[in-house]
Amino acid sequence: MVNEREIIDKLINGDIKLHEIEKYAENIDEALTIRRKFAEEISNTELKNISNYSINMELASKKNIENPIGVIQIPLGIAGPLKVNGDHANGKFYVPLATSEGALLASINRGFSVISASGGVTTKILDDKMTRAPVLKAKSVTDAIQIKSWINNNFQELKEAAETTTRHGKLIKIDPIMVIGKYIYPRFVFTTGDSMGMNMVTIATETALNLLNTKTGVHVVALSGNVCVDKKPSSLNFIEGRGKSITAELVVPKDIVKNKLKTTPESIVEVNTAKNLIGSAISGSMGFNAQYANMIGAIFLATGQDEAHIVEGSLGITTAMVEENGDLYFAVTLPDVPLATFGGGTSLETARECLEIMDCYGNGKVKKFAEIVAGTVLAGELSLMGALAAGHLARAHKDLGRA
Amino acid sequence: MVNEREIIDKLINGDIKLHEIEKYAENIDEALTIRRKFAEEISNTELKNISNYSINMELASKKNIENPIGVIQIPLGIAGPLKVNGDHANGKFYVPLATSEGALLASINRGFSVISASGGVTTKILDDKMTRAPVLKAKSVTDAIQIKSWINNNFQELKEAAETTTRHGKLIKIDPIMVIGKYIYPRFVFTTGDSMGMNMVTIATETALNLLNTKTGVHVVALSGNVCVDKKPSSLNFIEGRGKSITAELVVPKDIVKNKLKTTPESIVEVNTAKNLIGSAISGSMGFNAQYANMIGAIFLATGQDEAHIVEGSLGITTAMVEENGDLYFAVTLPDVPLATFGGGTSLETARECLEIMDCYGNGKVKKFAEIVAGTVLAGELSLMGALAAGHLARAHKDLGRA
Amino acid sequence: MVNEREIIDKLINGDIKLHEIEKYAENIDEALTIRRKFAEEISNTELKNISNYSINMELASKKNIENPIGVIQIPLGIAGPLKVNGDHANGKFYVPLATSEGALLASINRGFSVISASGGVTTKILDDKMTRAPVLKAKSVTDAIQIKSWINNNFQELKEAAETTTRHGKLIKIDPIMVIGKYIYPRFVFTTGDSMGMNMVTIATETALNLLNTKTGVHVVALSGNVCVDKKPSSLNFIEGRGKSITAELVVPKDIVKNKLKTTPESIVEVNTAKNLIGSAISGSMGFNAQYANMIGAIFLATGQDEAHIVEGSLGITTAMVEENGDLYFAVTLPDVPLATFGGGTSLETARECLEIMDCYGNGKVKKFAEIVAGTVLAGELSLMGALAAGHLARAHKDLGRA
Amino acid sequence: MVNEREIIDKLINGDIKLHEIEKYAENIDEALTIRRKFAEEISNTELKNISNYSINMELASKKNIENPIGVIQIPLGIAGPLKVNGDHANGKFYVPLATSEGALLASINRGFSVISASGGVTTKILDDKMTRAPVLKAKSVTDAIQIKSWINNNFQELKEAAETTTRHGKLIKIDPIMVIGKYIYPRFVFTTGDSMGMNMVTIATETALNLLNTKTGVHVVALSGNVCVDKKPSSLNFIEGRGKSITAELVVPKDIVKNKLKTTPESIVEVNTAKNLIGSAISGSMGFNAQYANMIGAIFLATGQDEAHIVEGSLGITTAMVEENGDLYFAVTLPDVPLATFGGGTSLETARECLEIMDCYGNGKVKKFAEIVAGTVLAGELSLMGALAAGHLARAHKDLGRA
Repeated sequence: MVNEREIIDKLINGDIKLHEIEKYAENIDEALTIRRKFAEEISNTELKNISNYSINMELASKKNIENPIGVIQIPLGIAGPLKVNGDHANGKFYVPLATSEGALLASINRGFSVISASGGVTTKILDDKMTRAPVLKAKSVTDAIQIKSWINNNFQELKEAAETTTRHGKLIKIDPIMVIGKYIYPRFVFTTGDSMGMNMVTIATETALNLLNTKTGVHVVALSGNVCVDKKPSSLNFIEGRGKSITAELVVPKDIVKNKLKTTPESIVEVNTAKNLIGSAISGSMGFNAQYANMIGAIFLATGQDEAHIVEGSLGITTAMVEENGDLYFAVTLPDVPLATFGGGTSLETARECLEIMDCYGNGKVKKFAEIVAGTVLAGELSLMGALAAGHLARAHKDLGRA
Repeated sequence: MVNEREIIDKLINGDIKLHEIEKYAENIDEALTIRRKFAEEISNTELKNISNYSINMELASKKNIENPIGVIQIPLGIAGPLKVNGDHANGKFYVPLATSEGALLASINRGFSVISASGGVTTKILDDKMTRAPVLKAKSVTDAIQIKSWINNNFQELKEAAETTTRHGKLIKIDPIMVIGKYIYPRFVFTTGDSMGMNMVTIATETALNLLNTKTGVHVVALSGNVCVDKKPSSLNFIEGRGKSITAELVVPKDIVKNKLKTTPESIVEVNTAKNLIGSAISGSMGFNAQYANMIGAIFLATGQDEAHIVEGSLGITTAMVEENGDLYFAVTLPDVPLATFGGGTSLETARECLEIMDCYGNGKVKKFAEIVAGTVLAGELSLMGALAAGHLARAHKDLGRA
Repeated sequence: MVNEREIIDKLINGDIKLHEIEKYAENIDEALTIRRKFAEEISNTELKNISNYSINMELASKKNIENPIGVIQIPLGIAGPLKVNGDHANGKFYVPLATSEGALLASINRGFSVISASGGVTTKILDDKMTRAPVLKAKSVTDAIQIKSWINNNFQELKEAAETTTRHGKLIKIDPIMVIGKYIYPRFVFTTGDSMGMNMVTIATETALNLLNTKTGVHVVALSGNVCVDKKPSSLNFIEGRGKSITAELVVPKDIVKNKLKTTPESIVEVNTAKNLIGSAISGSMGFNAQYANMIGAIFLATGQDEAHIVEGSLGITTAMVEENGDLYFAVTLPDVPLATFGGGTSLETARECLEIMDCYGNGKVKKFAEIVAGTVLAGELSLMGALAAGHLARAHKDLGRA
Repeated sequence: MVNEREIIDKLINGDIKLHEIEKYAENIDEALTIRRKFAEEISNTELKNISNYSINMELASKKNIENPIGVIQIPLGIAGPLKVNGDHANGKFYVPLATSEGALLASINRGFSVISASGGVTTKILDDKMTRAPVLKAKSVTDAIQIKSWINNNFQELKEAAETTTRHGKLIKIDPIMVIGKYIYPRFVFTTGDSMGMNMVTIATETALNLLNTKTGVHVVALSGNVCVDKKPSSLNFIEGRGKSITAELVVPKDIVKNKLKTTPESIVEVNTAKNLIGSAISGSMGFNAQYANMIGAIFLATGQDEAHIVEGSLGITTAMVEENGDLYFAVTLPDVPLATFGGGTSLETARECLEIMDCYGNGKVKKFAEIVAGTVLAGELSLMGALAAGHLARAHKDLGRA
């Protein structure tokens, strides 16, 4: 049994460091407890909720966190049923959502109700890949172009090298290869199966780069040259896609728009044009939508996706139009949603349970999960756009009445 | 005592809806239990970790979540000490970080160590505001310009109307007011004290719009016209700022770069230019940095910030240069970080505990917190850039040796 | 009389340089002739059209061109009448357009005809300014913020310094002042009367910077730090405006859409949404329009505007909607059009003649000219959108008939 | 002989229209004269310079202009020699430049001098293509994906259809094909030989679309859906390229930087980073350069390129670094420069003469021309950056001296 008091005192005095506690403790839970008590002592706070965890911290401390002191609790709700008519997801689903933003879940649930009344949401996977793009330095632009040619001419060899490091990852292309002065930015594009794949493609790319360096002498400046583009919003990913490129579509009969959303297809189309298209255009925004980030955020947290991927995952564009017969056509398109049903944060117990609620945990499930995500994003987007349009319509009547 | 079995059967048959359980249950915990059991039953899963919560669910169910079934647990670690020389944060801090991405916390901690060795990180609040920008429709562009003039000429009256709804919010300007055909996008800019302020400014803006509508007859199409710009990446917010605009700066003596980061100032500057500046430029990216999203994400989750705000919060640009004396100058600038130390998700028990570890919970603390955030972002960014540059340097020596 | 042969031989041998001919020639025309003959000789070409100029080359060689060898001829046509209902332009105008793109002028003329049939185009100046934004370097971010404060607190003094250099230029604000690490980018915003004003504001800004340097010691890295933003497309200028921010609006009765454009308001609105809004959004484009660059280009060349300003001048967004009564509402908004009716290229004889055709040459005319430009852009845009929509409509009928 | 007076009166009264004059006149010159006299009369101006043309107006009126009244004269100078070490251009060239911006040509000439002293500029064609991207509408997103598959599976058939319309155009790929809700944006990518190719690819794409419509029933909304992206700045073209993607590179020995540019490599690198990279990044600009538009504009006007293409043509990024030995590495990269040496405006007499000065007129010359353009852009960019850096350096010395 370790002497807690002594270690805490040493921590306070700076004699040992936070990550060294594990050397003295008998197991991870003991180390965690000491670290938490230290935190309590220096801040004069009782951390009783943080310490209330049920996940296997020993496992987490190897794969997910260093210097653990416990867990964060984020409220989790469930919305449903969501009726999905997809290629991989078919039927009714209950979707777990983790958020602290009141009314979000209710709004999504309202969208689910409109979807059910309209016969279900159509969902599609448009594309599926993961990328890594290093920055290389050649001796000159002439040399850079030759190296680009070498890459194109020896793709098969690079592919074999890359794929030695992974069972699931497949290098499908290196494109684009941008030459900027003597710098070269080749974008390695992989399929990664049911894991999100960033680690996999990083290791595979590094191995291919070793070969490239050996064969051409080109210097690798950095394993990522920001043309990947990981965890940053970019036109490149909007155009080329990254992670799962997903879409969902719904035709809402005009009566349902009226009865459930208290507005008209025309009002929703106008709000979409004025806000999501024009408003975003004049702001220099890449998010041509109302609130994708809210739905993506709540699903990502519930299911153990990387929270930093909310940045990319929430890019996209909402389209709305009035059909010939007066019904509302409504679609969401998200080009860049990194997703996993396996590995990373998904193996944390609560994430796994959430994925299991949708029967989406493990291998062979990620496309199904992606379609449920698409349907959920459409639901939340439609619900908010409907609410905005209902206000628009009500005010329009009032303004006209007064005129 | 309610009959669980009966309610679950009705849920399964669709006779009652998920959000109606509360009508039958005696309290929130009972409703939650029924809802969770329903989820377990339909998915044939045991949700034993989700159900392990200590937060006050009754409170959460009123403010943060609907249809609760429990909580998500996200691993929480602590890094420190971070030495901050700020205007509002001064001294050593231990920073709680919630993530499932292994190595992130260790990387940030390494950055903290470099900061300490370099004498502490300078942090600054560049700007502080929250915005809401509706889209209005005038009768014509002529009318739109007159309404814009009315807004400018009657700012004081609009301000008074807006501020009737809030004790802490102050309308400081309406700018820009963009006229696009007959649409008008006025951006209402507020200070909001220590709460993040989105709800506050939405209500205040709505009240001002009622006055504007009464006085000018202009029609409000939607309370948000995406010029806010909320939860979407935008050049507008990069330029004008939103939330807290924060910066952190560090001069790292070249010996410390060498000993702690195993590289040189020159290598870090080259990686910054090739990756964060050129790489992002050619990708059409707004994130001129390596990994702000990781640090912003981990702090946001730990402290109960809105996860969807990671999108805006992670925008920014890293600058690096070699000083006259050969030391490394390194800075991060984040123009658009919505933050709160009060209200919203910060009142959830674990979030509050995390804020208290830094003595950042409650009123009067948000600027201090913002500076700690800035310092933490710098630490993670510097650590990763250092690691990339160390690889760059090592390979450069090898490549040269072989040449 | 100079010995042409001898000079040409020396030019060929590299004994004298192209710009040194003036030293030997008696006047500019003789120098020009020698230079042209040299060009003819080395390329074995007869340059008989280039030599056909009537402009005052002596004047041009002092203000507009070095090493002259003659002129370029660009075909000039005239379109009209354009009926403008503006604040500064009122009545019918004939617009000179210089282009080599067949059909452009006819297309614009067709737009003018629709405008006339619809009662004239409404035009407005939304804003009017010219900017220069240097990049400065402070000692630290702390120092940078202090310098920013100094600028804000001593605006009047900086304004007086700037305005000593110009009769027409007025410094109206310095905004935004962006701080990025230790760099500072203050955007000096001027009104410049009827000249385009770039030179004026550059000189004025330099003088203000001398004062700033003397008072604060801040170092001026470059007189332009690309936040101006001159001759480059930018979100900043889209949001803040530069040059003349102009708009034009037209309501086209549905019968006129049918008879003159052979389509319907609904078809034009759909093409606008699918192409100018969605198509540009997903391409990461800043031009949310069909062809502003064509009209801006043809007017700029005709009237002696700086051709490089076509880049900024053609930014903008087209809006289209169906009015309550079924008519078409159509508007163009161009936030960033640098224009002059005085100075620079406008004093070249053909440019001046073109401006005089519209009674727009000289002082006090630039706002009138700006409104004619706006009307012309609308005409060309509407004409092309109408043509695209006519094809859309015709194909829609055919596709439906076949279905 | 037509009665001029009578026609002019009818024009004034609106009895005949401007484009109807040709019906009454015996030839184009007579029609032009009447039209010009009409313009003189209504504006009370003598248009004596506009009327001074030597180009074949009959030809121009068929291909380049409607309603001609004469020509614009733009001052033309010549700079040189430019020493190019390219794949297609090799040797010394004299470059014609048309501009009214004083000092531009002198600045470019100074750059040429630095290039000569440094041994010549390396130029490369990175890519070469022209694109057209229509917007199509399917019945649903499911249908849209099937049509996308049809396009991919029947590329050869579409290629054959497209190429029936052109001798020089070759359809090389249709990529990307973006699906947004039920809209589809396929980007048709062609090589077009020595003409710029917009008309060629538009006609060829239309023919392919007829086939696509027949086979799949997909509806063509508009022949251009703004994903081309023609005459608008876009990230898509920055990434994918359009027209000629060109680059030029120069290593300037440090002594030459010192003697000719009066500055240091380090100063140029700092100005490039602070202005062209950071300044443009924070402005949301796509032009990561100082003044490409000036050089592109002056060459485009001289050689009969489409002035509206200056918008795309001037996109690009400047890179600068200090080499191991202290020399300056400097490069310009322009991904999107539409160019022709044949057809369109290049057949106008003065344009042709300008192309002939460089031996670049006609078939088989466009790549040579593209490399000269790249070299010229580098020269102007380097010259301006050198001037800015010289000021930077001088002020730095002064500021230090005073400190």
